[in-house]
Amino acid sequence: MKEQYRILIQCNDEKGLVYKVSSIFYHRNLNIISNHEFVDKVHNKFFMRSVVAGDLDAQDLKQEIAKVLPKDTILDVIAPRKKRIVLMATKESHALGDILIRYEAGELDAEIVAVVSNYNLLEPLVSKFDIPFYCVSHVDLDRENHEKKVLECLASFGELDYIVLAKYMRILTSRFVEAYEDRIINIHHSFLPAFIGANPYKQAYERGVKIIGATAHFVNNNLDEGPIIAQDVIHIDHAYGWEDMQRSGKDVEKIVLSKALKLVLEDRIFVHANKTVIF
Amino acid sequence: MKEQYRILIQCNDEKGLVYKVSSIFYHRNLNIISNHEFVDKVHNKFFMRSVVAGDLDAQDLKQEIAKVLPKDTILDVIAPRKKRIVLMATKESHALGDILIRYEAGELDAEIVAVVSNYNLLEPLVSKFDIPFYCVSHVDLDRENHEKKVLECLASFGELDYIVLAKYMRILTSRFVEAYEDRIINIHHSFLPAFIGANPYKQAYERGVKIIGATAHFVNNNLDEGPIIAQDVIHIDHAYGWEDMQRSGKDVEKIVLSKALKLVLEDRIFVHANKTVIF
Amino acid sequence: MKEQYRILIQCNDEKGLVYKVSSIFYHRNLNIISNHEFVDKVHNKFFMRSVVAGDLDAQDLKQEIAKVLPKDTILDVIAPRKKRIVLMATKESHALGDILIRYEAGELDAEIVAVVSNYNLLEPLVSKFDIPFYCVSHVDLDRENHEKKVLECLASFGELDYIVLAKYMRILTSRFVEAYEDRIINIHHSFLPAFIGANPYKQAYERGVKIIGATAHFVNNNLDEGPIIAQDVIHIDHAYGWEDMQRSGKDVEKIVLSKALKLVLEDRIFVHANKTVIF
Amino acid sequence: MKEQYRILIQCNDEKGLVYKVSSIFYHRNLNIISNHEFVDKVHNKFFMRSVVAGDLDAQDLKQEIAKVLPKDTILDVIAPRKKRIVLMATKESHALGDILIRYEAGELDAEIVAVVSNYNLLEPLVSKFDIPFYCVSHVDLDRENHEKKVLECLASFGELDYIVLAKYMRILTSRFVEAYEDRIINIHHSFLPAFIGANPYKQAYERGVKIIGATAHFVNNNLDEGPIIAQDVIHIDHAYGWEDMQRSGKDVEKIVLSKALKLVLEDRIFVHANKTVIF
Repeated sequence: MKEQYRILIQCNDEKGLVYKVSSIFYHRNLNIISNHEFVDKVHNKFFMRSVVAGDLDAQDLKQEIAKVLPKDTILDVIAPRKKRIVLMATKESHALGDILIRYEAGELDAEIVAVVSNYNLLEPLVSKFDIPFYCVSHVDLDRENHEKKVLECLASFGELDYIVLAKYMRILTSRFVEAYEDRIINIHHSFLPAFIGANPYKQAYERGVKIIGATAHFVNNNLDEGPIIAQDVIHIDHAYGWEDMQRSGKDVEKIVLSKALKLVLEDRIFVHANKTVIF
Repeated sequence: MKEQYRILIQCNDEKGLVYKVSSIFYHRNLNIISNHEFVDKVHNKFFMRSVVAGDLDAQDLKQEIAKVLPKDTILDVIAPRKKRIVLMATKESHALGDILIRYEAGELDAEIVAVVSNYNLLEPLVSKFDIPFYCVSHVDLDRENHEKKVLECLASFGELDYIVLAKYMRILTSRFVEAYEDRIINIHHSFLPAFIGANPYKQAYERGVKIIGATAHFVNNNLDEGPIIAQDVIHIDHAYGWEDMQRSGKDVEKIVLSKALKLVLEDRIFVHANKTVIF
Repeated sequence: MKEQYRILIQCNDEKGLVYKVSSIFYHRNLNIISNHEFVDKVHNKFFMRSVVAGDLDAQDLKQEIAKVLPKDTILDVIAPRKKRIVLMATKESHALGDILIRYEAGELDAEIVAVVSNYNLLEPLVSKFDIPFYCVSHVDLDRENHEKKVLECLASFGELDYIVLAKYMRILTSRFVEAYEDRIINIHHSFLPAFIGANPYKQAYERGVKIIGATAHFVNNNLDEGPIIAQDVIHIDHAYGWEDMQRSGKDVEKIVLSKALKLVLEDRIFVHANKTVIF
Repeated sequence: MKEQYRILIQCNDEKGLVYKVSSIFYHRNLNIISNHEFVDKVHNKFFMRSVVAGDLDAQDLKQEIAKVLPKDTILDVIAPRKKRIVLMATKESHALGDILIRYEAGELDAEIVAVVSNYNLLEPLVSKFDIPFYCVSHVDLDRENHEKKVLECLASFGELDYIVLAKYMRILTSRFVEAYEDRIINIHHSFLPAFIGANPYKQAYERGVKIIGATAHFVNNNLDEGPIIAQDVIHIDHAYGWEDMQRSGKDVEKIVLSKALKLVLEDRIFVHANKTVIF
């Protein structure tokens, strides 16, 4: 079986894009495994994700495709490889544990380089899976200095593809976000944009909603306002106190985060205008 | 078959409430058709809804139950009857039409006294169902004067149980809300509290959500902040423009509103602390 | 704004299909409004649906495309037009009414030629919407003769695109199905393949399921075994008797049928190997 | 805080049951934490679950309640304690892993006595959590003799409350089922009764369904026909091969099984007429 490459194109829309790109695939005798296109008519943006199989040099193919596309194109030709990710968490184990179980089963096309937490509560769980655990405590540190230490810790791991916030309950500063721009995934425990900020389940309880949910999103500088990747909800009723919501919500949180992580690892997501296009 | 009565109790919680009330049912030889209780431990409130069948005088039973309950009790003994409702709408027919089809099929335990709209677009639809249609145009009127005319129109129908806002796209003033306190049901085209206010689908589009929804709620003085009765959602993706969201959202809106209306007509809803308890 | 045409291709998969088709679009200077492809690797089948805008002769374009595709291709170039449909129903009005309300609102890109029923119960509803209603009673007729009369009735309407069974509660013989092959849409009141056949809600009640649903499908010769178009479910609990399931199920039935009808009218569905590919 | 006791009553319905039972609670000065009743009118069965707090002798209370109930009553007064459970699995880790992560987090009110499998693949995972793992291989054994060895293994653990089949892929004989009657919980990877038996995802793929699901149920002698506890589904489309269904289905399976296990551990389930009543 030939190697599979993922080609991701994001550019201004114009006539002939599909023709020009598929022409290259055809004349190179590549097998198209899957092909998705979408045009955002509001922003006149064209998105295309192709998976092709064949003998090829990724850099060479990229150059050939670039020639037929408009100037401002964002173009990637990705030879699948295990992405290097770091998980961050605080005290809760459900989202982290869900990822670890998948990892152990070989379901994640990634290498978990380490787990970083501001507490050491999750160390026993993480160490079961032979993954390095780093506690970077925030105690006695202001936000800036704590984050500096976290960034140093992350930097020590070398090049990272994604940081996965699996219920990391600290707000990130813009310095942090910029260091890993478009590479930080967070799970927020509400169906955003409802209940932005702290204690969404308490907010949901006070408001008397009949639905609670979770949102996986890329992190940007505005708290809980980054591009949404995946969301899901569950129905609740008046008998749910906020702790019941929190307990039931965990199942949604972990499934939504794991689903988003899978999409990210498979290079299925484009980000544009603070929104995601997902194939 | 004996007549069925609905007993609704809302009071401070204390020991023996179920015992005392069920004792009355037992000694009156009433058949309990269904029985639901709930204690809101945060507010120490007890809620009970019983449906009983038997020969009885509603007023008499109410007095007997009142004697065994705490002072501040809200107590109702309801002999089921067709509730008198008015539907209000603006231009869209989906929520209104859904109710009319159910009404025609005999599924609604209610009398639709009239449909009131600030446009006359829906008159052809409504008149098919032999229901009086009143257009109270807002053209050339300020909010206060328009609403005064609407209230006069409503007053002309005599005693009303509920006003159902089936996509009535005008904001109500506190004068209106107070005139029909706890008796106005609205359908909001988002999963509240997300996207309060105007054009929620445009807001949802801008935010790039992966879920849209609808919320049926009682109307109070704060826009879109009344007690929530029912909510539901559908999944969407990047291919949905805001008009697509609006189109798909209509199905959720109408089903959620009709579901809420059914709960209201069956006297299944308690309102407390701006939230609903629903049996 | 230029006219929009829908191109539907279903053929054996081979290299270069997207290239060859998009090349035609490009050299004809057509605007691609949307483009979807899918390869069924199990059956080695390629499916493509494109919507293009431009000045063109549909027959001419079809011939040009046909030339570059394999021999066995199923190919359509469709100039959108109002499809002519007939609705069939028996006694229940929910699915029929849902379609009528959408029709009245101008949401259906179709002409409802007539409603045909084996009872006259729905005549008052249908006649409100100025649509011809035909009662073809089955009383005193065996299945064969009743169906013959229904087929005669349908034939009298001229060319029809689709027959929509909006809760038509009679089993169709193969003669009927063959007369309108791949053009009959049915709504079955269970999530097929669970509860095939009569009284699915009673079957569901007996089995004690916690979910009920509905399935819209094309009709073929095996009862309830045609290609599935759309399905949805709702959660229920032990308090639901089968009549409650039936009542609640109606909302799922009508939404699923209307959704399937929309897909059909927009030429979004391919049928292959008794399954649907839907773009 | 006083100890909490769960009272479960299942008997023929007759007048005064709520009154008589609540009278006992009242005169014993017990605090009612929650109270649920349901009458199955088809079978004339009354179900009641009360949680009460107070000083009491469970045996004594049970005797007092028994006196006021009909002869055939099934009555339990349960002083909450950690239930002793055994998990059984085969090769897949998702359902098992989900339970283990919850167990580690202290979310399960149970003691996991052991994990038993017919393979040793899951031993590394289980041993991380310091839970005894027993491999009882079926190789070279007929069904009867393999099961005999499994039963011996289970017997060695002493009294067990529940056996949880977390994707144990062997069919149980009636001997096994009877040994742990009403105490075996299974997760079936389809929304029963669709796709009973082997390879439900392959069956679902062949049928072309648009929904897949999972069902947690008690095991009885008829394969996949025991009382259903919980079900859920996810939407899929034509792009899902059966392996994709299987992969996506795992998330539903594990959540549904864990949900059912929680209901079981909290004594919330009554079984009657091969169905469940769940409070």
